[in-house]
Amino acid sequence: MTKLRVHNLAVSIDGYATGEDRSLEAPFGHAGGRLMEWFFPTHTFVSTSGHETEAVGGGTYGVDDAFAAASWRGIGAEIMGRGKFGPQVGPWEDESWRGWWGDEPPFRTPVVVLTHHARPDLAVGETTFLFRALAPGDALALATDLAGGQDVRLGGGPTVVREFLRAGLVDLLHVVVVPVVLGRGVRLWDDLESLESQFDTEATSSPSGVTHHLWTRRAR
Amino acid sequence: MTKLRVHNLAVSIDGYATGEDRSLEAPFGHAGGRLMEWFFPTHTFVSTSGHETEAVGGGTYGVDDAFAAASWRGIGAEIMGRGKFGPQVGPWEDESWRGWWGDEPPFRTPVVVLTHHARPDLAVGETTFLFRALAPGDALALATDLAGGQDVRLGGGPTVVREFLRAGLVDLLHVVVVPVVLGRGVRLWDDLESLESQFDTEATSSPSGVTHHLWTRRAR
Repeated sequence: MTKLRVHNLAVSIDGYATGEDRSLEAPFGHAGGRLMEWFFPTHTFVSTSGHETEAVGGGTYGVDDAFAAASWRGIGAEIMGRGKFGPQVGPWEDESWRGWWGDEPPFRTPVVVLTHHARPDLAVGETTFLFRALAPGDALALATDLAGGQDVRLGGGPTVVREFLRAGLVDLLHVVVVPVVLGRGVRLWDDLESLESQFDTEATSSPSGVTHHLWTRRAR
Repeated sequence: MTKLRVHNLAVSIDGYATGEDRSLEAPFGHAGGRLMEWFFPTHTFVSTSGHETEAVGGGTYGVDDAFAAASWRGIGAEIMGRGKFGPQVGPWEDESWRGWWGDEPPFRTPVVVLTHHARPDLAVGETTFLFRALAPGDALALATDLAGGQDVRLGGGPTVVREFLRAGLVDLLHVVVVPVVLGRGVRLWDDLESLESQFDTEATSSPSGVTHHLWTRRAR
């Protein structure tokens, strides 16, 4: 049974998952790298960002890495919002730009990019991006087909995650609370009152200062 | 040097420190007891709520109690918003009602209650409530005088804590993040962008499911 899983979704202690003023140069807007500083030193990040050849076995193996690594286990497809692919809005005017992820995106699976603007499927390295205008349930059905019996990762951003949470489709939610007050941006938790009633929750603080919240959907 | 300390301030994971629709019967509004369930089993709560004679040595002694107990160490006075004394708004129409705290309030120190509406000082058991219309700095000066060399506790509610945080007056901030999504109420973190830059932070998760965040002001 395919699960829909969210991993490594960092939010500020005031609940913002990304800042304001996002751009090509600033994917997290005014938040900069502050939401992901716990992630960058991990072995998982170092080894999936193409640096493995420079530092085999490099990076940390603490609790932050343990949680980060789970994101890559047993995943056969990803669903992401258009903003995770790139900062453009409206019709695709420059299809030569192939996303934030370089020549070998770390996904290495089919990736369903949710957008109302048509664009041909795009293979980059071992990853294929499929641009689709789909409601959450339909996007999950497509991704489940593509996942070949493995799970589907819901990659964000926060607006997309919130839509899938509201639709009751998320089976695992891993949120990383970072002790910064962003003050503005895109909130994760809006319009989700009593969401916790659908989940078993646990929390694990890390020496890095962040806290990993793992919400697992109860048996239906 | 007197410190101003906030302890045991519980917020939902979406940042609300109290719910909507507060009343005499529902001090936390629609949140009910959900923000404080971690607190009620602790030895600190059991022994300061008048139950000590029924259960000497009762209650839990885990990490939740360790943090809860710190609230009572070395405190010589408290500052609280009017809403922590009682649910009334406007002029005091019924002075015979002496607050939510019973015949022996747990404070046992002077308590400065911030209100724009005059009312005579009120002694209840070993606690004296002083009703004053004071700006944060002036309230702290008064409470410091009353504290006799000990620290001052800032008892909340969240609007009051936020005012003192904005004024840069808080030396210790203990916030307990509870894994519930309240969805509405009074937010703690609004208008405090980059607050963390003034503090050293640490976080400790508890088996109860909450996470204790301790923010300690850096040397000025």
